[in-house]
Amino acid sequence: MTLYDLELSGNCYKVRLFAALANIDLTITPVDFLAGEHKRAPLSVLNPWTELPILVDGKRVLRDSQAILVYLAGTRGGAAWWPVEAPQQAEIMQWLSTAANEIQNGPGAARLVDKFGYAIDKADALKRAARILDLIDAHLQQHDWLALGRPTIADCAVYPYVALAPEGGIDLTPYPHIIRWIARIKALPGYLTMPGT
Amino acid sequence: MTLYDLELSGNCYKVRLFAALANIDLTITPVDFLAGEHKRAPLSVLNPWTELPILVDGKRVLRDSQAILVYLAGTRGGAAWWPVEAPQQAEIMQWLSTAANEIQNGPGAARLVDKFGYAIDKADALKRAARILDLIDAHLQQHDWLALGRPTIADCAVYPYVALAPEGGIDLTPYPHIIRWIARIKALPGYLTMPGT
Repeated sequence: MTLYDLELSGNCYKVRLFAALANIDLTITPVDFLAGEHKRAPLSVLNPWTELPILVDGKRVLRDSQAILVYLAGTRGGAAWWPVEAPQQAEIMQWLSTAANEIQNGPGAARLVDKFGYAIDKADALKRAARILDLIDAHLQQHDWLALGRPTIADCAVYPYVALAPEGGIDLTPYPHIIRWIARIKALPGYLTMPGT
Repeated sequence: MTLYDLELSGNCYKVRLFAALANIDLTITPVDFLAGEHKRAPLSVLNPWTELPILVDGKRVLRDSQAILVYLAGTRGGAAWWPVEAPQQAEIMQWLSTAANEIQNGPGAARLVDKFGYAIDKADALKRAARILDLIDAHLQQHDWLALGRPTIADCAVYPYVALAPEGGIDLTPYPHIIRWIARIKALPGYLTMPGT
């Protein structure tokens, strides 16, 4: 199984983190993002979105970090991370959508501006970030984990760009429950760090 | 099972459409969105995101249209719409992320500006829309349906804001494969329309 990877991408880190936590063996293939390797064949054929990560498992090719988490957890990680019951999947799914939208376009986008110089509306990203971090902090005031009362792929999907928020100029101090959740994730057996977290 | 609903919301329509296609009985409870009913108790307690749709099934409460699709399909719609195998779920999941992010922030956001006067960057929404509609059109050039070669909740999640794109000032004429896919969806048994599609 090959993960086409960029070390500084939070989306790629979601996959590396989960694989480490669930003890899944991945072949990490670094992509030369600055040189635009992801925009050319063969990677642009594997993923016309020209984004990373990309997972290749035999003939199967997956784009989108959330989809890759579902795949890895469902085929190799076990039901602790991605249960087989639809109601429990739906509870997690709420947070996979949050990761894909509010987190990506909030703290994720703010970091793209500050760290990589992307031409994104920083004020809009900060506004979105403040809203979603408030909601997550309130949720974590009453729950140790985002879903099902235990670590799942929901946490793996949301964690990276929340933990990396300071790289987008976002101070996490006003979010004490998020800070404690970050500490719980870092204490999980097998936890893997990335630069900036 | 109660769906707290707004008729003109494409996110709510995802759920109504799928329930119609899969012959699932929902009690539709209209929400007075203009009066801010979703921002006050009891709805703001059911969903602190203060967004619609919200699904209530006994003690279970779900926000996020993608999560509601997973729930309805997995508990009542059957494996045709949301299979039990993780690789097939992951293939669909790619499109649930697309619906939550690129579609919501592309054609969905453009429509919010034009139809409801939201203070969103229209140029950014149009740029995002052009990119994702190009990608979807190219995908549909080679596939009749978004995932698994058959109608699934992937189509139900992506369809509404694509079909409603003209309400955001987006002409779908340059996307012939999307236009044919829309026609295929409209021809499905049980298809339910909404104003604007």
